[in-house]
Amino acid sequence: MPPISFPSDPPAPLRLGVCYYPEQWPKARWREDARAMRALGLGTVRIAEFAWSRMEPAPGQFDWAWLDEAIDVLAGEGLSVVLGTPTAAPPQWLVEAHPDVLPVGADGRVKPFGARRHYCFSSPSLAEATRRIVTAMARRYGAHPAVVAWQTDNEYGCHDTTLSYSPAALAAFRRWLRARYETVERMNEAWGTAFWGLQFLGFEQVGFPVGQPTSPLPAHALDFRRFASDEVVRYNRLQVELIRAHAPGRPVLHNFMGLFAEFDHHACGADLDIAAWDSYPLGHVDTAATFLTEAERQQWARTGHPDMTAFHHDLYRGIGRGRMWVMEQQAGPVNWADWNALPLPGMVRAWTWEAFAHGAELVSYFRWRQLPFGQEQMHSGLNRPDGALDDGGREAAQVGAEIGRLLAAGDAASLAMRPAAVALVMDYPSLWMAQIQPQGKDMAGFGPMLAYYGALRRLGLDVDIVAPDASLAGYALVVLPGTLHLDEALVERLRASTAVVVAGPRTGSKTDRLAIAEPLPPGPLREWLPVRVRAVESMRPGRTLAIDAGAHGHGVGLQWRDLIELDAGDAADGQDVRVLARYEDGAPAWLARGRFHLHAGHVDTDLLLRWVDAAAREAGLSPLAPEALAPGLRLRRRGQWLFAIHRGPQPAVVPVPPGAIPLLGGATLPPGGVGIWHLSD
Amino acid sequence: MPPISFPSDPPAPLRLGVCYYPEQWPKARWREDARAMRALGLGTVRIAEFAWSRMEPAPGQFDWAWLDEAIDVLAGEGLSVVLGTPTAAPPQWLVEAHPDVLPVGADGRVKPFGARRHYCFSSPSLAEATRRIVTAMARRYGAHPAVVAWQTDNEYGCHDTTLSYSPAALAAFRRWLRARYETVERMNEAWGTAFWGLQFLGFEQVGFPVGQPTSPLPAHALDFRRFASDEVVRYNRLQVELIRAHAPGRPVLHNFMGLFAEFDHHACGADLDIAAWDSYPLGHVDTAATFLTEAERQQWARTGHPDMTAFHHDLYRGIGRGRMWVMEQQAGPVNWADWNALPLPGMVRAWTWEAFAHGAELVSYFRWRQLPFGQEQMHSGLNRPDGALDDGGREAAQVGAEIGRLLAAGDAASLAMRPAAVALVMDYPSLWMAQIQPQGKDMAGFGPMLAYYGALRRLGLDVDIVAPDASLAGYALVVLPGTLHLDEALVERLRASTAVVVAGPRTGSKTDRLAIAEPLPPGPLREWLPVRVRAVESMRPGRTLAIDAGAHGHGVGLQWRDLIELDAGDAADGQDVRVLARYEDGAPAWLARGRFHLHAGHVDTDLLLRWVDAAAREAGLSPLAPEALAPGLRLRRRGQWLFAIHRGPQPAVVPVPPGAIPLLGGATLPPGGVGIWHLSD
Amino acid sequence: MPPISFPSDPPAPLRLGVCYYPEQWPKARWREDARAMRALGLGTVRIAEFAWSRMEPAPGQFDWAWLDEAIDVLAGEGLSVVLGTPTAAPPQWLVEAHPDVLPVGADGRVKPFGARRHYCFSSPSLAEATRRIVTAMARRYGAHPAVVAWQTDNEYGCHDTTLSYSPAALAAFRRWLRARYETVERMNEAWGTAFWGLQFLGFEQVGFPVGQPTSPLPAHALDFRRFASDEVVRYNRLQVELIRAHAPGRPVLHNFMGLFAEFDHHACGADLDIAAWDSYPLGHVDTAATFLTEAERQQWARTGHPDMTAFHHDLYRGIGRGRMWVMEQQAGPVNWADWNALPLPGMVRAWTWEAFAHGAELVSYFRWRQLPFGQEQMHSGLNRPDGALDDGGREAAQVGAEIGRLLAAGDAASLAMRPAAVALVMDYPSLWMAQIQPQGKDMAGFGPMLAYYGALRRLGLDVDIVAPDASLAGYALVVLPGTLHLDEALVERLRASTAVVVAGPRTGSKTDRLAIAEPLPPGPLREWLPVRVRAVESMRPGRTLAIDAGAHGHGVGLQWRDLIELDAGDAADGQDVRVLARYEDGAPAWLARGRFHLHAGHVDTDLLLRWVDAAAREAGLSPLAPEALAPGLRLRRRGQWLFAIHRGPQPAVVPVPPGAIPLLGGATLPPGGVGIWHLSD
Repeated sequence: MPPISFPSDPPAPLRLGVCYYPEQWPKARWREDARAMRALGLGTVRIAEFAWSRMEPAPGQFDWAWLDEAIDVLAGEGLSVVLGTPTAAPPQWLVEAHPDVLPVGADGRVKPFGARRHYCFSSPSLAEATRRIVTAMARRYGAHPAVVAWQTDNEYGCHDTTLSYSPAALAAFRRWLRARYETVERMNEAWGTAFWGLQFLGFEQVGFPVGQPTSPLPAHALDFRRFASDEVVRYNRLQVELIRAHAPGRPVLHNFMGLFAEFDHHACGADLDIAAWDSYPLGHVDTAATFLTEAERQQWARTGHPDMTAFHHDLYRGIGRGRMWVMEQQAGPVNWADWNALPLPGMVRAWTWEAFAHGAELVSYFRWRQLPFGQEQMHSGLNRPDGALDDGGREAAQVGAEIGRLLAAGDAASLAMRPAAVALVMDYPSLWMAQIQPQGKDMAGFGPMLAYYGALRRLGLDVDIVAPDASLAGYALVVLPGTLHLDEALVERLRASTAVVVAGPRTGSKTDRLAIAEPLPPGPLREWLPVRVRAVESMRPGRTLAIDAGAHGHGVGLQWRDLIELDAGDAADGQDVRVLARYEDGAPAWLARGRFHLHAGHVDTDLLLRWVDAAAREAGLSPLAPEALAPGLRLRRRGQWLFAIHRGPQPAVVPVPPGAIPLLGGATLPPGGVGIWHLSD
Repeated sequence: MPPISFPSDPPAPLRLGVCYYPEQWPKARWREDARAMRALGLGTVRIAEFAWSRMEPAPGQFDWAWLDEAIDVLAGEGLSVVLGTPTAAPPQWLVEAHPDVLPVGADGRVKPFGARRHYCFSSPSLAEATRRIVTAMARRYGAHPAVVAWQTDNEYGCHDTTLSYSPAALAAFRRWLRARYETVERMNEAWGTAFWGLQFLGFEQVGFPVGQPTSPLPAHALDFRRFASDEVVRYNRLQVELIRAHAPGRPVLHNFMGLFAEFDHHACGADLDIAAWDSYPLGHVDTAATFLTEAERQQWARTGHPDMTAFHHDLYRGIGRGRMWVMEQQAGPVNWADWNALPLPGMVRAWTWEAFAHGAELVSYFRWRQLPFGQEQMHSGLNRPDGALDDGGREAAQVGAEIGRLLAAGDAASLAMRPAAVALVMDYPSLWMAQIQPQGKDMAGFGPMLAYYGALRRLGLDVDIVAPDASLAGYALVVLPGTLHLDEALVERLRASTAVVVAGPRTGSKTDRLAIAEPLPPGPLREWLPVRVRAVESMRPGRTLAIDAGAHGHGVGLQWRDLIELDAGDAADGQDVRVLARYEDGAPAWLARGRFHLHAGHVDTDLLLRWVDAAAREAGLSPLAPEALAPGLRLRRRGQWLFAIHRGPQPAVVPVPPGAIPLLGGATLPPGGVGIWHLSD
Repeated sequence: MPPISFPSDPPAPLRLGVCYYPEQWPKARWREDARAMRALGLGTVRIAEFAWSRMEPAPGQFDWAWLDEAIDVLAGEGLSVVLGTPTAAPPQWLVEAHPDVLPVGADGRVKPFGARRHYCFSSPSLAEATRRIVTAMARRYGAHPAVVAWQTDNEYGCHDTTLSYSPAALAAFRRWLRARYETVERMNEAWGTAFWGLQFLGFEQVGFPVGQPTSPLPAHALDFRRFASDEVVRYNRLQVELIRAHAPGRPVLHNFMGLFAEFDHHACGADLDIAAWDSYPLGHVDTAATFLTEAERQQWARTGHPDMTAFHHDLYRGIGRGRMWVMEQQAGPVNWADWNALPLPGMVRAWTWEAFAHGAELVSYFRWRQLPFGQEQMHSGLNRPDGALDDGGREAAQVGAEIGRLLAAGDAASLAMRPAAVALVMDYPSLWMAQIQPQGKDMAGFGPMLAYYGALRRLGLDVDIVAPDASLAGYALVVLPGTLHLDEALVERLRASTAVVVAGPRTGSKTDRLAIAEPLPPGPLREWLPVRVRAVESMRPGRTLAIDAGAHGHGVGLQWRDLIELDAGDAADGQDVRVLARYEDGAPAWLARGRFHLHAGHVDTDLLLRWVDAAAREAGLSPLAPEALAPGLRLRRRGQWLFAIHRGPQPAVVPVPPGAIPLLGGATLPPGGVGIWHLSD
């Protein structure tokens, strides 16, 4: 994969859009809706991604009339269209004729028609029907001047549908294994079936890694995760190729989700032109039970967490190799979290500006108007079910006007994204490994990633989130936030880099077969840090260990620690390992050697901030003082502009650099406030 | 349905009874038991409701001898008999010959023979076998002079058996849909299948609304709930008709449960002469996790909650159109809650008097003697397994004597129930809607209902709980405690009424298809309250919003709020909407216009009390001061009598009206105490 | 069963061993490993218990070469071998050819190949294959001089595999019932099918007691538990007999688990020569959620609970009729608890000495070297994956040296175990009864047992844990810690005994059919304590009742109480029942008559200590003062030696008896410390 590239001439930056479902509203309303969109400042409309049964009401019989008209009405008002392929909603005729389309749960039960995403990625019948509908659609609209981009499917994997336990999936898994290992002996060797005498007789005797009396072989489970991820990638590529064949020059994207890692988004994104994602800041706070405390979930209930949304912007900008859209932007309360708060006044605007600050080319609100029936009837939109403009709609209009002010003050080129000085590595297979072998019940998921990201952001630093195989050239600081597996490509790039490297606990601990790295963790990192993890300890919530980091403060360790043993001859090249902090029992908690830092455990938020600050300074960066940003205040630079977004409960003073010229907001931002300054450099 | 009628001449008010299982005890013991019942003051004995396999040991072969004798023994001691049809316990020969009798769970697994309620309401084989046993039983005992009433089955729906996912249920559901919609196009339209392209091909292609990757269409789910409710009603009606054909003049009843709403009890009750229910105050407190706090569950562990039992008395009196029995009265610890407390001394007596105060004609204890074996071996009765009288038995005897004193002081007519001044509307489909689309995780269930009921009762007010289609004539205050759907019949009655109306949050928010009311909630209520709910917000436990209600105090909102927008021209008829309380962000929390009040969210208990108090005064009622009733103390009037029941931990002074003549208890009641006064009016 | 016998000449007491898996390591490493074991002081190596697929790679085709060599290599270094039969890991060829080998879960789903314990105890195909492999193995190695003992299978029942719901299990269950009851009428009578009309038509119509709409008949459930237990016993006996036929003179053992009671270990142990168990002190603390508080789980996270490990030593010493081994000893962090702590330095040594103090003949560490792949890759061993000795290995070596010092100071005979003065009765079926009919949600499991054991141990008393049919001769104090069923044999022994007897709540409350004891609990205990349990009350966590025990202190009751009624004529023999403590409402909490004590409920830890102390003094024992042992400090005598193990967070002074001569440790022990003294008597 090439390094992240930032198109020098991004097409129409800072556009606004909306998601619209003409098939759900009377035709009589379409034109009026299109006019109102335009009037509100929206330029792009995504449509059609659940309308398969309307486009192809019976097998091979297509009804394009309504969609022709819908596109023409939108185009007639000067709106651009993003067309979604409708495969997330297979029609009932398909599943009745081909029941193998339906996915099967881990409990062995078929998931029937009646909602959405009722398909198994491995179904041959699905592939055939997909080929037919996507080809027909792309042929019809591929050259339509108003259709400026294509979305494949909708939110792959949503509702626990990445993994399917169907006969088709089993057959495909076995083929996948045969292709990977060629002989069952090699598979047995790779999986370590010497343990518990688990030799498999042949590929046809391999089952799903589920339902056994206790957990299956870790490598068996990991290969199934890899296979399932590959199936998503393969299915997406099928659609991308069909679209590209008939829609030349139109970028293809997919709308990924937040807090979701069931398949390798880097691999999927490699086939796309743009990585889009669906941003629901409040829903994500409500559901993020694994790494937010209950207090945090209450604190950020109406604003979203200060780092979680930005994290995803940076993540998907990396996955899109510089091109990122927000395909669905929360515009009011949602319906799908356990509790659904009302956004604080101003937050819809603030989320939009935050997306732009992090490089979004388009922010598209979900949805034009709240639909009074169906599963999402309690999901708000820009307009209310009674047709009146809602709060979110008013804030969107405000952003539209503000974009005008910004573009008047500086051209699009002034907004071109520049690479950040800090790279955070995101590796999907490492997340699967942590789920399969957590060793501590709370050790799987986005927690460690967000902890490091949050520390960097609280220091005012901009961050690129990069794939393990991305170039690290140009970065001053590289963070490996507990990346369990370091592949050779990444190691090679670490070698080539001159960056200061910070590795979190568990980094380099596993091979690609989900075995312990040899001779011991941190595995490949030992090239720079001649230490061994002689043992690991996971800690129940509530158990902590005091840590003394000398000049870098005091704090506590929690959740996890790697017990570090220094190699006997570690000073061979004259550079001793420095132990910068120790646990109360003397075990090293933070070590460094040359430009490499190792954190031997999870520590409290404030202590981590101090450690990251030290590494950043060592990297030659100028992080803000730890207290410079009030709680909930974050900064982001884009081109020659500085953006500030404030979510805290109290007004906050922005540490504006000298000479910056204010465009929007003042030096003190209210809760939900946005500030924009032109930088003097 | 006609309005609640109160029989002017209730047959033998204030009777005591007991549940008895002669088939579980040696014959030699029957007569001795019957004598002891009589001696204890019991007049009625319910028997036979689980004895199908004893009555019909093989298909079509009946053994009546034992039951003839049991009834004769009881009758011989002057006891009346309530005969239960035994269909809650199908014999094994039935399920072996007709496996379709067995219910199927949502997980697709058949629930086998071995406990009770192992039947699917839609099974044709069950219907046939039911027809045979009920006909045979009714023919044999219909004219028996000692058999004074009949109970159908036992606790319909107990153990999660209302909904069955069997092939028979699926076929019946499809027939039900065909009858309701006639064409699949109409069904698609009603269900809103335009959403997610969910058009169904035909009725035969409709499945259960369960197991889909995510939630099915709300209208699909709601129709399945309606269908399942109709199946219970139909099955009960089958039994009622068979009994009526052969048991002329005997009332037919069913013993409903507490905190249970899986089918429409009003519809089922319409086919009955009496609504009976099974009252387990301590079990209900232990299991009411959804709306009692842990502290409340501990506080009322040995007394039962001060309002929960009375709520059910009032509910079932309404369902029975004035006639209500307690068919099973807890007489000591039960076996089925997570933890099973010992009733506070005196509570069995207090519960009995509370039932009478709320209009019960009969209180029948469960059970005569604790059975030392079987699933309920730890369920106490009036007598212990060793034959000795238990605490509950002694308290029952005391009540028996006290009834005598009461009837000596005033005839039965003086105890005739009068309609209350306050009506609380109970709508079962609204509860299903809230379960299907909760929007806040804790927003389904009896909570809102009990919050309003409790506020009214703490103010000393008597309450009738009425069906949505009940007459509202004569009521000064009508409470809609978050009734999601208001049907036209109810709206018509609200129009006809002159009562002050209090509507809780979510009232009128949904159509009968479980869509958002047009143009917006509160839907039909907009006739009187020209406002719109522009958004809703649900709040995690712990999140609160301050509320200022001016003269009506301060407090907090929690769980849910409707964001209210006042219609522009709301003063058209000269009556402005008054905003009586606001949230901290200025949103209206309590509004009124003319005789209609709207509470825009859930508020803390004390604040709700103040608001209900204000409405009651506006309605011309004279509620007690909020502090007049000590914690746990409640009052109820019946005819010319005033009853006080006290559950609090401290002695409580009863606010006895001037001129009332004490019959039982004093002006200060101990914990568990009962007071009765003759009123001077 | 004979009384516990203590072999006068235990073979080589205080041996150390290790678990080893040659099939998982290169042959080249075997000899080096063997030498290192020897050098570390280990004498015994357990091997082969998961290597079925290596021994019999295809049906009937055996490959012994590698195992021959492995044994020879170990023997060549002077190591003894314990051979495990490999049946816990059936090869895939077996389950492919005979799918009936696979177990079926309570949800009806087959548990497939891919982990371990994927077999149903009732499978005829399993029995046949077991006969073949065990016979072949025993024939080959039965006379091998280095093979000193045999282990059957591995951890019967682990991973919820005691109960299987397969067709084979159903057929076997029906046969078992037929053998037990002969006629279905007798079964119906025994099960109490008069309740809910649950008469079964025949044995072939009996199903599993699972999946019914509500709980099945208690006696049905209990018989299924008994059947399943018998199947384990039967399967183990099959193996034992095959081994004995070919391996004369070699003791046969099984490695049981901690906190596990799914089958009757006394019945299984009766067929064995030695009861071994697998001791994981930290894992057990982490998983013991049912009876340790969260605070306790944190407090003992790195040491293990002060009584839980010792409890199992005493339990399995009883099950082994005096012969007990620790087959697997935790040597570092494990991988299978929710969180896996690092043992406090010194704890591996301390656990080893604790095992010896309680009579272990062998402590065998798990495992020689941590395996870097497979399900247990995060399970530590004596050596790290990189081959270096781990902390546990160093501590094992230290113990080896210390054993030498001990044996130098006193011969093996001086270490011969003596019977304790206190017997605690452990009855497995009583635990099943409590699970089937808990009556309070937290009333099932090891909690009550450990509460009494802990009180005794905090008083410095040694305890034997005995089977219900064990002799009570010689014991001064017998504790029945809530033994629900007292069979006639135990009652007879209580009659014969002169011990002071302490019975916890629920003792004697059930018949062997899981019915309430007649006329009432405490059933057979009424011979000595003429009282009746007139009711029981279970209490939610947080509900407590004050207790006043006069001179024996104040405290609270919680969880459970038996409401006690004294028999009218209880003073017939001149010995009145003494009420020694009462609940706040006057109900008796502690009663005694003659040498029998009855605790009528669960009480707080400190109050229980006072009550047990009083009984111990009455029994003529000399318990230490309640405060004599600092938190976490425990004592144990073995022969002429006194051992002290200290887990508390602070240094603790050991109350060393006068004249005792120190061998190891001092009078003040650090956390994790061990002290050994030679007693002067």
